[in-house]
Amino acid sequence: MDQIILFGDSITQGSFEPGLDGFGQRLAHAYARKLDVINRGMSGYNAKWAWPVFRQVRQFPPPGAHVRLLTIWLGANDACIPPSPQCHPIPDFVQSMNQILDHAHATSPGTKIMLLTPPPFSAAYREADLASRSPPLKLDRSFEHTRAYGEAIKELGKARQIPVLDVFRHIWEDAGKSEDKMMEYFTDGLHLNRRGYEIVYREMIGLIQESYSELDPEKMEYIFVPWKDVDWANPEGSLVPRKV
Amino acid sequence: MDQIILFGDSITQGSFEPGLDGFGQRLAHAYARKLDVINRGMSGYNAKWAWPVFRQVRQFPPPGAHVRLLTIWLGANDACIPPSPQCHPIPDFVQSMNQILDHAHATSPGTKIMLLTPPPFSAAYREADLASRSPPLKLDRSFEHTRAYGEAIKELGKARQIPVLDVFRHIWEDAGKSEDKMMEYFTDGLHLNRRGYEIVYREMIGLIQESYSELDPEKMEYIFVPWKDVDWANPEGSLVPRKV
Repeated sequence: MDQIILFGDSITQGSFEPGLDGFGQRLAHAYARKLDVINRGMSGYNAKWAWPVFRQVRQFPPPGAHVRLLTIWLGANDACIPPSPQCHPIPDFVQSMNQILDHAHATSPGTKIMLLTPPPFSAAYREADLASRSPPLKLDRSFEHTRAYGEAIKELGKARQIPVLDVFRHIWEDAGKSEDKMMEYFTDGLHLNRRGYEIVYREMIGLIQESYSELDPEKMEYIFVPWKDVDWANPEGSLVPRKV
Repeated sequence: MDQIILFGDSITQGSFEPGLDGFGQRLAHAYARKLDVINRGMSGYNAKWAWPVFRQVRQFPPPGAHVRLLTIWLGANDACIPPSPQCHPIPDFVQSMNQILDHAHATSPGTKIMLLTPPPFSAAYREADLASRSPPLKLDRSFEHTRAYGEAIKELGKARQIPVLDVFRHIWEDAGKSEDKMMEYFTDGLHLNRRGYEIVYREMIGLIQESYSELDPEKMEYIFVPWKDVDWANPEGSLVPRKV
């Protein structure tokens, strides 16, 4: 089957976690029997490290199949504050993102791409989480700094005409732009909980319907027919894969 | 990446459904960055219809990757009672299963295989669910008939030396062999709920550890190193895929 590849950091890697109904799991459910959903999230990675991985991913595009949709969701780790080794300054971050996008276009020109901005960052929640660790850790990100990486993603999307899912804005607005309400969307101030992922999934499906309507899961047919459409007298004749 | 393929009916297809923490979703989470988990469940299909699909699945084995584990979970629809068109008598069911297994061995000899028995069937629960539909439907399965298909799977596994996950027994015993308690494991008497899937996942991981310990997710490494092991001064040198 053709594929959807989810490329990103821990917020992508964790999108099948039990109890969270993450966007990866929900896509896999919505596209069952239509497209395979492949998780290429790597916890802690910034775009600098993600780029050489992306370049080497053997299956992009996978032989014999097409990548119909590629989501790229990076920036949350790049936005770390020095001296964090994850810190990747905005101009370098944009360069890494362009390398990834250039490679995607060159090697898989038919692939539709969606960029995502990092979620807003709850400093108070994250600070408490890091302080509780052994040894305690200092706050490694800021709300405004994370927002700036999202703005860079939006400029990049505009310049390259790639749809951008502005996760930062959607969650921040859903929270009524209230710092206090941010805890309702995260497990730790950085990683999304069920409610946070629900917004991502809902808005992602909306953006697919708007920008790439041929990939709307509700409009795609199963590759092999529903069982009630099997020709029961002559099943083999009706069990031929369809192009979706 | 190499793959795990989940081949089966609706109980496999629905194993990423929101709110259920199905075994497909949980495997995808446990094997993230190690093996891709591919859903090949087809709602309503019996083994007679599943076989021509399996034979045509273009990506078995996928070019450039290996299928490390194949789970085959069929029988719940074959066990329908005439005049259901899904009914597939036990000798024919066993023949279809042998065709699938012969093809898997011939085309992908290195693939480890696991068979699963159908879950026990809650007739009272299912009967109420079917009666509530418009138009009302008659009961289409029985507890003892479903059990017989599971027994056939166990014999097949024994004859072919393939590990069998006896879902029927695990859930039936967890319920204290009480018909009344069966509702705690299903959404409708046939399809598993969160608790039912939890038993499947737990027992499946146990059987992997016992029979195919090289595929124990806890013992496998990430293909690309954890971010703290990236060589921050020279990232590219440390970002080379590992064999897992």
